[in-house]
Amino acid sequence: MNLALFSPDEISHPLPRSDRRARHVLDVLHGTVGTQFDVGLVNGPRGKATVQSIDAEAISLAFEWTVPPPAADPITLLIGLSRPQTARDILREATTLGVSAIHFVATEKTEPGYAHSTLWRDGEWQRHVLAGAEQAFSTQVPTVTADSKLAAALTTLPPEVLRLALDNYEATAPLAGYAGWRDASPATPVVLAFGPERGWSPRDRQELKTADFPFVHLGSRVYRLETAVIAALTLVKSARGTWSA
Amino acid sequence: MNLALFSPDEISHPLPRSDRRARHVLDVLHGTVGTQFDVGLVNGPRGKATVQSIDAEAISLAFEWTVPPPAADPITLLIGLSRPQTARDILREATTLGVSAIHFVATEKTEPGYAHSTLWRDGEWQRHVLAGAEQAFSTQVPTVTADSKLAAALTTLPPEVLRLALDNYEATAPLAGYAGWRDASPATPVVLAFGPERGWSPRDRQELKTADFPFVHLGSRVYRLETAVIAALTLVKSARGTWSA
Repeated sequence: MNLALFSPDEISHPLPRSDRRARHVLDVLHGTVGTQFDVGLVNGPRGKATVQSIDAEAISLAFEWTVPPPAADPITLLIGLSRPQTARDILREATTLGVSAIHFVATEKTEPGYAHSTLWRDGEWQRHVLAGAEQAFSTQVPTVTADSKLAAALTTLPPEVLRLALDNYEATAPLAGYAGWRDASPATPVVLAFGPERGWSPRDRQELKTADFPFVHLGSRVYRLETAVIAALTLVKSARGTWSA
Repeated sequence: MNLALFSPDEISHPLPRSDRRARHVLDVLHGTVGTQFDVGLVNGPRGKATVQSIDAEAISLAFEWTVPPPAADPITLLIGLSRPQTARDILREATTLGVSAIHFVATEKTEPGYAHSTLWRDGEWQRHVLAGAEQAFSTQVPTVTADSKLAAALTTLPPEVLRLALDNYEATAPLAGYAGWRDASPATPVVLAFGPERGWSPRDRQELKTADFPFVHLGSRVYRLETAVIAALTLVKSARGTWSA
C-alpha cells in the first residue's frame, strides 16, 4: 500500500484494528505511537497521518493535508459487462492509470449472470478501485456504475465529448495516430467504449454509430480485454500529452 | 485459444488426446474428422489444420501454411527477476504485445529464492509465452532466459541498440516523447530495462549507466511492474510507428 486512502467521514473516528489501513500500519509498518505514513482523501488532498494512540480495539490518527488534489483526467470508460475477474482487473488497472469514470454496461453479448456477481452485489468493486488508486499513489478514484444498458448509457453522455469505440473487426482506422486528437485539448473529455469479451453485436455497433462513436482498432494482434484497456489508455494519454503527468 | 501453436518437430506425429491443442479441438471446438482450425509454427508461418482422424489415443492433423511469418519487432526486455506471479504475467503480456526476447536478470534487490521457482526450474515459463502468442494470434515467440546477472546480460548486448532503463526515482526525462526515437528507424533494436519490484540498487544503476542506458520515467503515478511493462511497450511501439502493425 503506497498510500492509504480515506473517505471524509472516516477521518474523525479511530480505526478498528481489523481495518485494512490499520493492518497496514500495525503489520507492515510495525507502527507505534508517532509513526507517520502517506494518506489521501478520496478525490481530495494527500498528506501524512501520525499514529496518536493504539489500544486493544483501535488506532487513532492525526491527519495533515499538504498536497492538493490531482488534476482530473477526464476520461470515461464504457465497457461491455465482462467476466467478474476481467472486471476486477480493469477496475484496478484503469484506476491506477487514472480515469474519471468506469461504466460497465450490458450489451447484447453480455452474459446476464455477470451482473449478479458478488463484485457488483456486495460492493466489492470499491475495494478494487481503492487498491488501484493506492497503487498509483493518487487520490483520484473514478465513479463506477454497472447497472445500465449500452443504449441508456450512450444517451447520458454530454455533447462536447470526444468519442471512440474500440473494435478489432469493423474499425478501419488505428487508435494510435487517431487524427481527432489534433483539434482536442488535453482537457476535452474523452469516452472510450470497449465491447465485452465476446465483442460488439451488430445492434451494439448501430447504437454506437448513432451516438457518433467512430470505430478504431489496436492493430492486428488480439488482446485480452484488460490488456486492451491498458494499451488504449496509454495511447490516449500519450496523444493528449498527459501520460507523464 | 485463438491460434494453436506448434513447434516444427510436433507436426509430423499424431497429437495425444491429453495435449492442450487436442483438448481445444475436442472439448472447445467439438471437432470431428474434417474440422479446421487456426494453427501456427513457432516463429514461422500461420495456416489451417484439418482433423484427419480421431482414435482412442490421439488425433491426426494435416497442416497447410498460408500466411508468412510476421515481421519481428526487435524489442528486448531486461527485467529484474521478479515474483513468479509477476513474471508469469509479464511473460504472457509482453509476448501478446510482441517482443523478440525477455531476459529476467538477477539484480542486487532480487529475492534469490525467485530463481528456484517451478516457473524456471520445470520449464513452466514456456506455457506462458505460448499462451501470450496464441492470444495475440501471432506466431512470434520470444527467446526467454532467467539465469544471468544484470552485469553479465549488459555485456552481451550488441552495440547498435537503442537502450533505455525505466526508473521512477532517478530519471529526469519521461519515456513518452523520448527524443531518441527521432533518429531511430522502427527496425533499430531496442532494449528496455525494468528493475524488479523493489527497484534498482545504486550498484544496478551504475552498471546501467556504464552500459549507456539513459534513465526514463513513466510519470508521477506508481505502476505495478506488469502494468509498467505493458504501458512502456505501448509507448515504445507507438513512438516507433509499429503499434498498429
